[in-house]
Amino acid sequence: MQSEKEDEEDASPEEYLALCSFTGSDSDQLTFSSGDRLLVHVKTSSDWWWAELQGDKGYAPACYLRQGATEEVEDASLEDPWQDEEYFGSYGTLRLHLEMLSDKSRTKAYQQVVLSNSASLRSKVVMDLGCGTGIISLFCAQLAQPSVVYAVEASSMAEYTRQLVKQNGCEEVVTVLQGRAEEIELPEQVDILVSEWMGNCLLFEFMVESVLLARDRWLREGGVMWPSSAALTLVPCQANSYFAENMAFWERPYGLDFTPLQPLAQQEFFTKPKFSHLIEPDDCLSTPCDVIFLDMYTLKVKDLEEIEGQFQFCVKKSGFFHGFTAWFTVYFESLEAEGAAVELNTGPDSEPTHWKQTLFMLDRPVSVNAGDSISGSVLLRRNPIWRRHMTVTLHWKINGNTQETDNCQANILFSLYTPFISWLIDFFYYFMWRNALHFNHAMSERRVSPCGGDNLSPSLPAVDFHRKHLLSLGSVKYNL
Amino acid sequence: MQSEKEDEEDASPEEYLALCSFTGSDSDQLTFSSGDRLLVHVKTSSDWWWAELQGDKGYAPACYLRQGATEEVEDASLEDPWQDEEYFGSYGTLRLHLEMLSDKSRTKAYQQVVLSNSASLRSKVVMDLGCGTGIISLFCAQLAQPSVVYAVEASSMAEYTRQLVKQNGCEEVVTVLQGRAEEIELPEQVDILVSEWMGNCLLFEFMVESVLLARDRWLREGGVMWPSSAALTLVPCQANSYFAENMAFWERPYGLDFTPLQPLAQQEFFTKPKFSHLIEPDDCLSTPCDVIFLDMYTLKVKDLEEIEGQFQFCVKKSGFFHGFTAWFTVYFESLEAEGAAVELNTGPDSEPTHWKQTLFMLDRPVSVNAGDSISGSVLLRRNPIWRRHMTVTLHWKINGNTQETDNCQANILFSLYTPFISWLIDFFYYFMWRNALHFNHAMSERRVSPCGGDNLSPSLPAVDFHRKHLLSLGSVKYNL
Repeated sequence: MQSEKEDEEDASPEEYLALCSFTGSDSDQLTFSSGDRLLVHVKTSSDWWWAELQGDKGYAPACYLRQGATEEVEDASLEDPWQDEEYFGSYGTLRLHLEMLSDKSRTKAYQQVVLSNSASLRSKVVMDLGCGTGIISLFCAQLAQPSVVYAVEASSMAEYTRQLVKQNGCEEVVTVLQGRAEEIELPEQVDILVSEWMGNCLLFEFMVESVLLARDRWLREGGVMWPSSAALTLVPCQANSYFAENMAFWERPYGLDFTPLQPLAQQEFFTKPKFSHLIEPDDCLSTPCDVIFLDMYTLKVKDLEEIEGQFQFCVKKSGFFHGFTAWFTVYFESLEAEGAAVELNTGPDSEPTHWKQTLFMLDRPVSVNAGDSISGSVLLRRNPIWRRHMTVTLHWKINGNTQETDNCQANILFSLYTPFISWLIDFFYYFMWRNALHFNHAMSERRVSPCGGDNLSPSLPAVDFHRKHLLSLGSVKYNL
Repeated sequence: MQSEKEDEEDASPEEYLALCSFTGSDSDQLTFSSGDRLLVHVKTSSDWWWAELQGDKGYAPACYLRQGATEEVEDASLEDPWQDEEYFGSYGTLRLHLEMLSDKSRTKAYQQVVLSNSASLRSKVVMDLGCGTGIISLFCAQLAQPSVVYAVEASSMAEYTRQLVKQNGCEEVVTVLQGRAEEIELPEQVDILVSEWMGNCLLFEFMVESVLLARDRWLREGGVMWPSSAALTLVPCQANSYFAENMAFWERPYGLDFTPLQPLAQQEFFTKPKFSHLIEPDDCLSTPCDVIFLDMYTLKVKDLEEIEGQFQFCVKKSGFFHGFTAWFTVYFESLEAEGAAVELNTGPDSEPTHWKQTLFMLDRPVSVNAGDSISGSVLLRRNPIWRRHMTVTLHWKINGNTQETDNCQANILFSLYTPFISWLIDFFYYFMWRNALHFNHAMSERRVSPCGGDNLSPSLPAVDFHRKHLLSLGSVKYNL
């Protein structure tokens, strides 16, 4: 492996600056500190580069590196890592607000929170952060009797929010403040901080940071956060249609062999998460598992940089394991003594929401049997530059439920690129470069980074892919 | 009206240069020539500005104007009006090709053309222009016996097309040429020029220009064009769901009055065509009408600048007239003596295609009765700067079928902005600024450009909106 890499190395590696520190998660990944200057030998993929630091070589995440001299880095710092113009610009138009308001599960959950706490809300001071059209503030004013609701909105929608407040006769209770959460000034501390800050995979857009900053500045001691907590849930799943439409399609369309396009399809459709996926409960291969839990009272902004969760799934039915599906649930604690929390669950067993679910496809499907175990971890790593984005890395392994696999500890990883033979015949010829497979019989000495490159040999070892004896291990990484 | 306009005029109007000539279609529109310097007083909407030329005032289309000094205009000329990087870039990825290939109606139509002409294709020289993945070329090679197929593709997909040709054993017949239609060189004239060049509303993307240039350069005298002709079809229609979800939604969501957002909704959702609309046959208010017909043998590039069509629809059932839906049909003449043409129809009575249909919403629905006539014109005006885009302007009038309307020639146009009262009660309170209404009893002296501004008074005259006696006239303009 190493020697192959070196063969491919550029005669003149380019110097890159590490924008922040990174700790490699295996021996193929390079560990470096912010400010280190790395030599990049091969830009293996858009995500991972083969780089060198003081003689050590390994894969480095491309998004942590920036090329060139100091002045260029300074230029970069002039860019807005929060992309606020784009972000708040999009909330200044109606499309997103219509989508959110048309989402009845979401909106009615907030309505229900206000309604079921209406007695306790009396005379309270409320902040509705990122209020958008002001619907939550209006619920508060119409369904309860808070003394005041500060409706805070950074986008130009705030002007319309004022009109809506007036149109609904709520201007004595609701005060609309246009500004960023970090910059607004309130005349007082608030009793309740309510916000609908959740994005895809819970954290995407990282509006939660603004909520935490507002909490620390404006929530009085003992005040209440709505949502009060949040969980990210994961499930291994089938995705037969998506796989068929985007990958199997190329097998024999109109009687022609279009398989040479499959690597492109894999790269284009499977290396990014599929947002707006609607998973059927029946597509879940096991009971979903909460992998990350956030307490909105104790969560700190710096905690958001890296959040890791573990999972262990027991496969409850045999089928093709195409990927992981993620969604979130948020909980609103009750202000009443014996009151029940309100829950907004965006999973497949609840009414669909506008978030739907997020599908992370494996590079190739894996056949699993009832009783198999899929264990591993998910790592959400916030993008060090683009602060509203993050990387999701999934590590997993599959343990078969038969005796033969018990001693499977072979540490041979390999990855197959092509050829693609009809998935209808055998999924197991269909291995893509980003995945690795553990066998209880070592078949190959090829070793690549789990997130390695697309420069691997397309040769296909003659492997006995008999499923039962398989122990599968993989890792995929996605940028959001 | 005029005096209102003047009140709003800026103290310091800005000077703009006319990039090309424009002939106003009514007295509210300014007529000017390329190179004229106009003073823009009010940027009434994103499409139309209130401007002045040598003392005359009127609305001018914003896209015809560019601000500032000559050097800026020169800068502008450096931009690529064909947006080729973006355009061919998008065809270098798989997403669009997957969409096109997954469209069975489209792809099978071309397959059928080849199949039903296979005898006549023997030994012919074929050019497949903008071949994409090369599917049409492969059909030719596998289903017929042409002497050669030149598969021309400008995007980077060409590299994969070569692989696919080889993978399918067609490299002796199909020659892949990467390059723009305008630049490629062939060793010979061709007998048949086949291409799938159609876009939304038939012409969007204006790939047809490349086809015409290739025809003039490479098609031998008496050679065949596939498609051989094309028609754009229009129908007045209902769009109840789209209207309800985007406009009526704001009436009373969650018991609140959100009508102040309706002007924004109108501007955001109804002033642009809705692509990917699927009209139900039942939503057609009358028999569809071909409004534009293109003969692919005689059509010239310069004809594309401005294409106008007329229509006269007889309303066959009463209902709400929400807008016009457009689609196209292309025809492939047969090479066989008695052969039938193959037709690819993208309308509601055929299998849905990936083009679906294009919906042009009126600013407010109009109630129509069986027997009413809707007559008018559609004008496709190619964008003078951005050569892949165009403007669609629809003029129409509705003639009621009762005696009372026979003498309706009142030339009072007016436009109501707000208030919005529930459309469920009466659509006719729901008049938006871009539309005009003719009454047989003059109710108001307000006069605005059909494509006028959003700065009109929101006052609502007390009008008897009784439907039967109504003669409606309107005009809308869309940028594609």
